[in-house]
Amino acid sequence: MKTIYISGHKSPDTDSICSALAYANFKQKFDPENQYVPVRLGNVSNETQFILDYFGVEAPQFMESIAPGEQLIQVDHNEQAQAITGFDQAELLEIIDHHRINGIFTANPIYVRIEPVGCTATIITKIFNENEVEIDRTTAGLLMSAILSDSLVFKSPTCTALDEVTCRTLAEIAGVVDVEAYGLEMLKAGTSLSGKSIEEIFKTDFKDFVVGETKFGVAQVNTMDIDGFIEEMKEDMVDYMNQLCQADGYAFLLLALTDVVKEGSLLIATGDIATVEQAFNCQLEDHMKYAPGILSRKKQIIPVLTEAIVK
Amino acid sequence: MKTIYISGHKSPDTDSICSALAYANFKQKFDPENQYVPVRLGNVSNETQFILDYFGVEAPQFMESIAPGEQLIQVDHNEQAQAITGFDQAELLEIIDHHRINGIFTANPIYVRIEPVGCTATIITKIFNENEVEIDRTTAGLLMSAILSDSLVFKSPTCTALDEVTCRTLAEIAGVVDVEAYGLEMLKAGTSLSGKSIEEIFKTDFKDFVVGETKFGVAQVNTMDIDGFIEEMKEDMVDYMNQLCQADGYAFLLLALTDVVKEGSLLIATGDIATVEQAFNCQLEDHMKYAPGILSRKKQIIPVLTEAIVK
Repeated sequence: MKTIYISGHKSPDTDSICSALAYANFKQKFDPENQYVPVRLGNVSNETQFILDYFGVEAPQFMESIAPGEQLIQVDHNEQAQAITGFDQAELLEIIDHHRINGIFTANPIYVRIEPVGCTATIITKIFNENEVEIDRTTAGLLMSAILSDSLVFKSPTCTALDEVTCRTLAEIAGVVDVEAYGLEMLKAGTSLSGKSIEEIFKTDFKDFVVGETKFGVAQVNTMDIDGFIEEMKEDMVDYMNQLCQADGYAFLLLALTDVVKEGSLLIATGDIATVEQAFNCQLEDHMKYAPGILSRKKQIIPVLTEAIVK
Repeated sequence: MKTIYISGHKSPDTDSICSALAYANFKQKFDPENQYVPVRLGNVSNETQFILDYFGVEAPQFMESIAPGEQLIQVDHNEQAQAITGFDQAELLEIIDHHRINGIFTANPIYVRIEPVGCTATIITKIFNENEVEIDRTTAGLLMSAILSDSLVFKSPTCTALDEVTCRTLAEIAGVVDVEAYGLEMLKAGTSLSGKSIEEIFKTDFKDFVVGETKFGVAQVNTMDIDGFIEEMKEDMVDYMNQLCQADGYAFLLLALTDVVKEGSLLIATGDIATVEQAFNCQLEDHMKYAPGILSRKKQIIPVLTEAIVK
């Protein structure tokens, strides 16, 4: 019997945690002779904890790094910078993802399933169905929640028709009658910033990116209280981001505080602010700017930053 | 209505031609509002022509290059060196493949389906079934033939249980009673070298590879008459390969003449022969060496060459 680890990306969001749990459930049912272990590479967010509590599921075990030769399945990421430490010495068996592809190399053919949908959980639901493996109530709840999270309850421009149909079907299996109400409750549980440290907020969903020679980082935090944040925490956040930017050699750091109900994001940047201003065609004032309509890091933030850097 | 081109790799083998035809058939049925056009990037082999004649199918149209902005689906390859000229300015929509991954980069999320099976046609058959699209008799014949070709009638070490099961199911739909007999007839039709020019033989199934800074090329030709080749063509082939090696800056060129019935390959190399000798742990005599058991370029030739180069 082999042990195969299933991991989402660093700074895990709800999709990374729930998809790892759900895919481990699928693989275990499909291939009972091996042991599939979902793992997480960082702390579980308030939003994810709300979901785990709601459906009575334990969080995946924390994994610092993977040992050489161990077997690994990556969900919800394909970029090296987002993978578990040591992944390049591990044996990568599969990638299930919904992001752009940034340089996958493998020595042998492996199983790769990447689809332009809003959520990895949507692809994992397809895989259950294609292989006629039953989705239990709890797993349906996790998959449904991941779609609601990535799609911001169907409001994000990354949300496709398939994501919404899949989510509503999963809600029936999970016994959740009012999907929208559940989704908003979940998002709200996840957006409370009070009692959190500056670093904790920034690292909630932080990702490194490399374009050519330029390394930068983008954090995204959902909150329904941007005003409260500006009043209480903004100055300390800028100090923190300035230090991190210099200490870790980022060209710039961007934090997007996204309010799904107001449908916009407060952008806060340190380092080479000019690139950020060029990307969003605006002027930051005291490191910040409210950007109406900006909800998706993947679809509305990374592409314009990439373009501004390449220019 | 959009036109979307579906292309296999350069120097197309049977899988590249048949999978492009079959996937175009699937996409056209699944999405009738757009136009799916299978294309080929080179001449059709004798083996492929035998299949097309047998099932009464026209070869895909030849395509020299793709214009900027045109839409493209790649089947049976993911490496840039094997893709249609101009692919980097085209809009890549999908990749369906069964090879190792050598540096895929995309600006946006796309549909990628790579599986560690012996043939792209096996994956395409799965896609038909998953989407409950009926496979017609002719398409079944093409998909079946591609699997028989890539698996050398189930003898290649790359052939998986799924490839064989899929192939036999397709044979029932295609109305082919004796799959093995059909497969051998097909392979034999493909292996006749008489009447072909040296260049034509070499380019039948030739692929470029890049490992680090080292560019090399490996051609594979199936034949059931290695002795006849040595007598009639070997000297001219070595001269041709020597010239090509120097003219196009290859570190080395390797030609594998594979006899599926004898289950071995005659290796012919020019350029940096030492790397080839190290890879196969043997000494070439007058540029050649018969290697018993070597049948698969992907599984038995490229990995050892890569290892020898990296060392």
